[in-house]
This record gives sequence, C-alpha cells and structure tokens, in this order.
Amino acid sequence: MKKIDGLIAAAFAAYNPDGSVNLALIPAIVDQLLEQGMKGVFVCGTNGEGPSLSVEERMQIAEAYMKAAEGRLLVFIHVGHSAINEARRLAAHAQQIGADYISAVSAFYFKPSSVQVLVESMAEIASAAPNTPFYYYHIPHVTGLQIDMLEFLSLAEEAIPNFAGVKYTASTIHEYQSCLHYKDGKFDILFGYDELLLPALAVGAKGAIGSTYNYAGKLYNQVIAHVAENKWEEAEKLHFEAVRMVGLLVKYGPIPTQRALMKVAGLDLGEPRLPLRSLSAESSSKLDQDLEKLQFMQLVARL
Amino acid sequence: MKKIDGLIAAAFAAYNPDGSVNLALIPAIVDQLLEQGMKGVFVCGTNGEGPSLSVEERMQIAEAYMKAAEGRLLVFIHVGHSAINEARRLAAHAQQIGADYISAVSAFYFKPSSVQVLVESMAEIASAAPNTPFYYYHIPHVTGLQIDMLEFLSLAEEAIPNFAGVKYTASTIHEYQSCLHYKDGKFDILFGYDELLLPALAVGAKGAIGSTYNYAGKLYNQVIAHVAENKWEEAEKLHFEAVRMVGLLVKYGPIPTQRALMKVAGLDLGEPRLPLRSLSAESSSKLDQDLEKLQFMQLVARL
Amino acid sequence: MKKIDGLIAAAFAAYNPDGSVNLALIPAIVDQLLEQGMKGVFVCGTNGEGPSLSVEERMQIAEAYMKAAEGRLLVFIHVGHSAINEARRLAAHAQQIGADYISAVSAFYFKPSSVQVLVESMAEIASAAPNTPFYYYHIPHVTGLQIDMLEFLSLAEEAIPNFAGVKYTASTIHEYQSCLHYKDGKFDILFGYDELLLPALAVGAKGAIGSTYNYAGKLYNQVIAHVAENKWEEAEKLHFEAVRMVGLLVKYGPIPTQRALMKVAGLDLGEPRLPLRSLSAESSSKLDQDLEKLQFMQLVARL
Amino acid sequence: MKKIDGLIAAAFAAYNPDGSVNLALIPAIVDQLLEQGMKGVFVCGTNGEGPSLSVEERMQIAEAYMKAAEGRLLVFIHVGHSAINEARRLAAHAQQIGADYISAVSAFYFKPSSVQVLVESMAEIASAAPNTPFYYYHIPHVTGLQIDMLEFLSLAEEAIPNFAGVKYTASTIHEYQSCLHYKDGKFDILFGYDELLLPALAVGAKGAIGSTYNYAGKLYNQVIAHVAENKWEEAEKLHFEAVRMVGLLVKYGPIPTQRALMKVAGLDLGEPRLPLRSLSAESSSKLDQDLEKLQFMQLVARL
Repeated sequence: MKKIDGLIAAAFAAYNPDGSVNLALIPAIVDQLLEQGMKGVFVCGTNGEGPSLSVEERMQIAEAYMKAAEGRLLVFIHVGHSAINEARRLAAHAQQIGADYISAVSAFYFKPSSVQVLVESMAEIASAAPNTPFYYYHIPHVTGLQIDMLEFLSLAEEAIPNFAGVKYTASTIHEYQSCLHYKDGKFDILFGYDELLLPALAVGAKGAIGSTYNYAGKLYNQVIAHVAENKWEEAEKLHFEAVRMVGLLVKYGPIPTQRALMKVAGLDLGEPRLPLRSLSAESSSKLDQDLEKLQFMQLVARL
Repeated sequence: MKKIDGLIAAAFAAYNPDGSVNLALIPAIVDQLLEQGMKGVFVCGTNGEGPSLSVEERMQIAEAYMKAAEGRLLVFIHVGHSAINEARRLAAHAQQIGADYISAVSAFYFKPSSVQVLVESMAEIASAAPNTPFYYYHIPHVTGLQIDMLEFLSLAEEAIPNFAGVKYTASTIHEYQSCLHYKDGKFDILFGYDELLLPALAVGAKGAIGSTYNYAGKLYNQVIAHVAENKWEEAEKLHFEAVRMVGLLVKYGPIPTQRALMKVAGLDLGEPRLPLRSLSAESSSKLDQDLEKLQFMQLVARL
Repeated sequence: MKKIDGLIAAAFAAYNPDGSVNLALIPAIVDQLLEQGMKGVFVCGTNGEGPSLSVEERMQIAEAYMKAAEGRLLVFIHVGHSAINEARRLAAHAQQIGADYISAVSAFYFKPSSVQVLVESMAEIASAAPNTPFYYYHIPHVTGLQIDMLEFLSLAEEAIPNFAGVKYTASTIHEYQSCLHYKDGKFDILFGYDELLLPALAVGAKGAIGSTYNYAGKLYNQVIAHVAENKWEEAEKLHFEAVRMVGLLVKYGPIPTQRALMKVAGLDLGEPRLPLRSLSAESSSKLDQDLEKLQFMQLVARL
Repeated sequence: MKKIDGLIAAAFAAYNPDGSVNLALIPAIVDQLLEQGMKGVFVCGTNGEGPSLSVEERMQIAEAYMKAAEGRLLVFIHVGHSAINEARRLAAHAQQIGADYISAVSAFYFKPSSVQVLVESMAEIASAAPNTPFYYYHIPHVTGLQIDMLEFLSLAEEAIPNFAGVKYTASTIHEYQSCLHYKDGKFDILFGYDELLLPALAVGAKGAIGSTYNYAGKLYNQVIAHVAENKWEEAEKLHFEAVRMVGLLVKYGPIPTQRALMKVAGLDLGEPRLPLRSLSAESSSKLDQDLEKLQFMQLVARL
C-alpha cells in the first residue's frame, strides 16, 4: 500500500446558528485546506466532534466532504463510536461513498481490557468496509487507554486484512519510531501531535494528521521542506513559531481556541456542541492580544 | 417530589446468539427483579451497555421494559450519550412512553471543562423530557470527571426545572452524606456502590441503584431490614457476604462475572458487545470454584 | 495481641520561629490530646511532617512524646522513610525508648513493584524493632500505591513476626471491612479517614487514627458513644458536623487549615516546613468567616 | 554561564554484598564513563538511588566521585530529599567538596501546591550552596508533579541567584524546545529522556543527562556526531538501536535491567536497595536471550 506523504487536516465541525450541522460551509473549508497545502482531510474525528454528532449527521458530513473534495484531497472518514454496530454502519457508508480511508478510535465508555480485545474491536469495525484501508486512531490522553503499540501492530496485522496503519497522537516518539520500523516500515504511521512534528520528522515521519494544519498548514509544509533540504536550523526556527502558538491552545482550551483562529482565518464555524463551548468574551479578548503579540497568523499568511 | 425508598436494579443487556438485542428475555428479567424485591429498574445504563447500543435499540429496550414492568417496577431510562442531540432524542422518547424517571451520565468523549458546563449539558438533556424527573448519573471512576457534587446540586437546582437527584456511584460517602443533607434533603440521592451499601445506610441512604441487586437483591433487602430494626451487627454479617462476593467481580471483571452469575441465576444474557467479552473458559471455571466456596448464590436463594 | 479501642490523634509538627522543631510545646499538645479523650498519639506521620524532618529531629520528637505521654497515651512512632536503612534506624530507636507501636508508610520515591516487594520492605523495617508491634500505614492517595490489602495481610502474616495491623487511610470501606474479617479479626485494622468514621463504625471499626481528632476528638468520641448505644441517627447528626468542617480542609488545604484550627484551639504550631505553607492572610480570613458560620469549634468545646 | 555540550551519565548506585555502599568501585565506574565519552556524571539521582541512601552515605559517595573524577568529569551532586533541611545539608556539603553543579528534585512525599511554592523550595535548597550552579530536576512521571516549566523558569530566574537550568526528564519536547528558547537561551536545559535524544537534538538540545549513557554513551555520541555532520538518516538508524534496547528496560524494569547491563559491561553493582530488587533468575535469563538477539552491547563495543 502506498503511504501518505504530507499533511492531513483534522477538520473542525461547522454548525448553523440553530445548532444543526452546517454542510454549506464545507466547500469553503475544503478550499482553505487546499490553500494550506493539505494532502487530505480527516473528517468527524476529535476536532470534527464526531462523538457529539448523530450517525446521520456524520454520514451527511462525510458525503459533503467527498463531494467538495472532488478527488483533490484524500478523505479519511473517522467512524469510531461508543457502539460498535454504529461504527460498522459508518464504516460501510464511508466505503459506499468512496472514502479513501476509514479510521476509528477505541470504544470510549467501556475500555478494552487488553490489546487483544482492542484489536478484535477494530477488526469488527474494519470488516464492515473491507475494501477501504483502515487506520487505528491512537489518542491515549483522550481515551485513557495505555497500550503497547508494537503489540497492537503485530496483532492487527493478523486480524485486520485492510489494516493500513495508525494515526499516532502521543508524545512517546520513541514508540512512534519503533512503529515506523515495524517490519521495515510495513504500515503507515501518521503522526498526530502537531507541536512535535519536527521531532517526529527527525525519526522518519512522512505523513501527519492534525488540527493546526487547518489554518497553519503552510508553515508546517515549509518546516517539512526545510527538512527535505536538510536545513534543520531553519526548520527549528519556524517550528518554534508553531510551538509558541500552540501555547495559546493549552492556555485557553484547544478546540475553542482553534475555532476562534478559524474565524480569524475567515471561516465562522459557529458555536460547538456541548460539552464544548466557544471562548468566553473575556478569553476571546485576551486571546486576541496574545495573537497580536505572536503575529503568527500574519506569518502564515506571508508564506 | 417523593423520594425512592428501596432498591433499583441496574439491568444487564441481553443479546441473541446473532448479537442483536434480546427483547424477548425482558419479561423474565423483570420477573426476576420482582422476585428479588426490587422497587425499580435502571435501563440502558452502564450494566445495560447503553453506550454500546444504537439509539434505536435503546428505544426498543426501553419500550420492552415499560411493557414488561406494567407498573410493578419504577422504570428509569438512562439516556446519556456522547452526542447531546441523541441524548435528547432518548429523553423525549422515554417521556413519551411514560418512563418514571430519566437519568444521564456526563458526555464521555469530551469532558465538560467545569461544573457549570456539565450542568448546562444536563439541562439541555433534561429539557427534552420536561415532565419527567431527571437524575444525574455520577460515576467518576468511569467518566474520569472529578467534580464537587455540592456545587453541582446548587447549580442544577437553578438550571434544571425537573432535576430530582443523583445516582451517586462513588466511594466518597462523606460527600454523599453532604448531598443527602443539601437543603434539608431537597433532592433524592440514590447510592450506587453496592459493596458500600451498609456504610451508606449509616449516613442516611434510603434508595440505591446497583448491578448486584439483579441477582442478590433479597440479601441487600435483608440488610436494609436489619438496619430498620436497628440490628446493625446482623446487617454487617450479611453485608459482608455481599462484600466477599464482590471480590470475585473485581478479580474476574465486573460485567462479565455478573453476566455469568445471572446465568447461574437462570437467565442466559448471551455474549456482551465488544469491547466487553464473556469470561474465558478458564476464568469461568475458576469462578465456579470460587462461587462454590462462597456459597453466596445458595445463601441468597434461601432468603 | 490486644486491639486498640478508641481514637488516636495523628499529631501535627510544631516549629519554633527559627524553623527548628518545637519540643517544648509537646507537653501542651499531649495535654490537649488527653482533654480530647485520645487513647493514643501517632508521631511523625503525615500530619507530623515526618518526611520533612531529619532522622535526628524525628528521634528527638519521639523522645519528647514518650516523656510527655508518661503512659497516659499509647505512642505510635511512624518510622517510614524513603531510605530503608534510615527507617530501620528510626524503628530501633523507637523500640529502645519504649514506644508502644511502630508504623511505616511504603517507600515513596521508588514504588514497590508488587505486594511481595512491599511486604519485604516492611519486613526489613519491622525486624529492626522485633519486640514492638508493627502497623503498615496504607495511604494510597499520597503514595500512589494501589495494592490489594487482603493479599498484603496474607503475605505480611508470614513475613513479619511482629505484624499487628494496618492504619487504613482510604475510602474503600468494603476492603476495610474485609480486612477486619481477615482470619476472624486476627489483625488490628485502624481506620484513618476521619470524615468516614461513622460509615466505618457500621462495618465494625473499633479504633481509628486521624488528624481531626487532635482538636475535635470529643465530638468523634460522642459519635462512637451514640453508636455504642445504638443511637445511629444521633450519631449521624453529630458526624455530619465533622463532615461539614472537613469541607473546609478540602477547600483551603488539609494541613495548613488544621494548623490554623489548632491555633484557634490554643496551640501555635508555627510555620510548617516547605513544601507546605501556612494559609495566606486572605485564605485565613475566609476560613475565619467559614468557621464562624459553622460554629464547629464552639460545638466541640461544649461537648 | 557556560552551557554543557555533551553527555552526562546518571550513575547507578553500587553496593557491597552486605548492603553497604561500595565506594571502592567508584574509580572503575568513572573509568567506564570516560571510556564511554562522558562529559560528566550525575551522582545520587534516581539511578543512583539517592532517596534510598542516608545523608551520610550520599556525602561519602559524592566525595568518592569528586576524588575519582579528578577534574576529568563534570560532577553534578543531586541533593533532592523529602526533608528540605537535609537537602540543604547535602547542598552545602557538595559546594564544600567542590562539586561543579548541584541539582534537586521536588519534595516527593508532600507535593508543592503551586509553581511558586516549588520555586521557593528550590530557592531554599540552592541558597545553601550559593556559589554552585543549581539545576532543577524535572521528572513528572516519578514525582507526579505537573507544572508549566516556562512559568517555573520565569519564577526561578528571580528567586534563585545561582539558578543555571533544568534536567528535563519528560517526553513533552515542545515544552523542552520552549525552555531552550526562553530569553534567547538564557538557561541550560539538559535533556533527560534518553530514548528521545534524537528528537530533542532536532529542536536544539546540546547537553543531556541519562542512565543508558553509562554503558552506551559511545553510541549516543555517534548519534550526536552524525547530527553535527547533518547526517540525520545515519543518526536515526543508530538511535533506533538504542530505542530497541530501551524496549527491554520497559519490559523488565528500568533500574534492575540496567544494573544487569552494567554487569554485562563488566561492573557488578550488587543488589539494589528495597523497594528495588535485582531481576529474578527467570527475567535475567529472558533478558540474556533478548540481548543476544539485539546484539546491542556488541554494537556499542565496536564503536
């Protein structure tokens, strides 16, 4: 299987003022992703608030992205769900509409009691879209699931015929490096922790999926370009601009802050669904001041 | 509002051999609950694998319990869901079919960032069934949500017109006691940690919801009866039998072990949904030996 | 071995204005404990800031308590230390000066990798005071050590000839109850979570060690007296007064708040050692207001 | 202040068969470190089992390293202790014997309640050795202390005149990168997570302190040399050999496994102190097989 080289944006959810999903905005989101140099889009994941959407809404959004992408972006449909039959329904639908890839997070109410059970769960989901490559979505700080990813690879290899790789969202880059080396690079391990992209490139990352790429993809692509030219110091300088910006996400809350940044970038995504909330007026005003100091969005715009 | 006095069983999910929900077994489950002296049943909660079911399945199960209960049991419908619009759909349905109470756990993929946001989330759910009393389902060891429940009560009191109380599933009995005393007992705080029932009775618990009551309700009712007669030593002796049995749940895994106990008690619930699994043959055989030593089921049968 | 019936105060550390340990205050502390109806005192434990003291200071404090107690209080010397040879030195000293009991917490920098290793560690400490009964100090929320205490008892029974019991500081009262029942009550399991004393009495607790007993022992003794007379409702009412007071400890920080309460009760313990700090002026003033509302110290004074 | 460029080994503790500290072995340990290309040695830290030693033992070890090093290695003395007056005593001693640097971990029984209190604690320790540069030892997975290190730097800069930098032992390389950039690199931030050395080099790490450097320093120095020559692919290949080896540390337990590796490398360090234990015979035999497969020690020997 061909591995992904480049950046995939984990798209944010868009809502209308009445709280319904804003499908009409998706073509504009896709245009922005193309402008930011994205290779693909990851739909209905964490940033896309997949778990806050109904199955029907997720299908509508998936269809809208397929249509808007028109083959210009690789489309991942995230089908993870607390109910495995719903995840299967989403997977089958994704395959039917021609998604390039599916991906699923572990069940997140009940936790699998072992790697074996996690792999069985993923196999059951992946088998509902047998012709579509499947990526496991590893995000332990959200799921609370501590598993040995090398053991996961060795079991998934046997149990999941369409297993393609992992969206690896953790800071344990040594384990990430080991996954890249597994059977001489048999699987595609996409890196998912944006503020650690440069360190991950140093151990061989080629593809990555993340939220900050939505509005700052050009900067990260420039980091990647510097590395390709073996200009690591330039890469580090630019990457540090992203790290400083991510400091604001930690300070004010990752998803609400980034939805505010998307508005700065020209796309009004509306109010997120509970239990998420938009930034308060006070936080919003402080964020504006912090952003003004960093001049990050201006830097991206100039690239 | 009238408070609940007595035990509510958190019913287990039942599945057919093909993995579909076994609605036909529900009348037999209800009969067992009546035989165990239950005042009510809690449907599609943690033990009922609510988060592993589709919305449609949950509605079918809710309807089956309403029909089977025939007013002989108070019926709680758990409507918690990672998606708030799905929780609202479940709540509206529960009210429409005449459920006595609804209850919801916090969102469990994204965590509310504050008590305020948690209460807002619960208010949005509860408002979809405005004529049905609402209980918040507090279970921090599953949700990972650490909140001050007295603060929750003071905010919920204002924000949720149909707020009735809490299913309190935590070992912090001092906080539970404080909740019982809130505004001289304004709300109904049902205790949810079966192996701590006797300690909870000592601070004033009257109602409780739990999984072990499904098959051992008669024993706990006897504990409550001893306490009512001020015979605390007898109560302790009997309660300790339950505590020893619960040791097996910890040893082999709570839900799989209890599903095996339900089979011992005469009800075959089928294979649970992933990420849960039935006990392995080896664990099952060891459990049988442990049970034989404890003679717990026999003790319950004799009561 | 005779079990302890009644309350043991976990004494606070006392310091002079120059930061040295205030040995001169210890007779007054002992008088207060006798006035509060204490059976004993637990010296240099968590509240006594044992881990913040040098070995020499701990020995001086131990001697001062032995002298001040004059046989009127049972004296526990806590000898737990990150270095096992220092713990042994403290244990041998405690035996030499005639302490009634020694106790030790687990090593707290490196964590034992299994119950077996924990028991080996405790055996090595206890063997330095072979004629003095040894209590293991179980306090998982501080040490981060999650162990099965029934397994601990079964291993300690074999490995520690002078093993007498456990200071059990956790909210898992069902496990506490199981420990009380171990071999028909072979060991003395002292309860260590003051705000859960009444629930623990319901499962058979007879002795308890805690910090709030220093200044509110009379209230808890009254709770125990009510229970002895089978007056559980009166016990609950009084116990709830303690629970409300403990709410302030959580709000402002347990040790700083209680050191402020000790000052209210007439004993100025000085500034605690870093990393602890006295309450800020602002917190101190808020605490005064909260205390005024509760009227807790006045209630204790009247008992 | 001059920053450190190169590797510092976090030396292991050495014990005699009777459990006393083996001072006689220290010259041989120093020889090995020089052979592995070390710039310095970190004495009585985590690997050195500082918290398991008495203050007197720590002083003896510090003196032995000073004497054996003879100016050929930079000597860090770790003075962290649960008791701040003991930490101060160790700091003063380290300065008196001419140590190049001191370092301290946070108090580890009581946790500082804020960054401010942590800095106050470190200031009190550092002031006992006012002429010796002080490094804070940040190791959150051991201390459980989650603090914002940029905030720490800004407070330490004001409060600690001899503050020199941080031993940064965490996988959050983006925060590490931010610390490197703090005030254009004002402080020396030494990286402490060996299996992430290459990713850290990518963001600008120059110096590092770690345990695996004791026996595999030559390999890591070669990684650093490749990076200096801008040969990142060669660096990655070699670094991955270390990552694979570290997998064994995770599998069998970091300190016991590495003490076994030191024996393979020719130095018998004896049995560690409780609560640590040497590998069991079974684990030891499995480790030998795993090592044989990896051929890691042979690879290092050939460099």
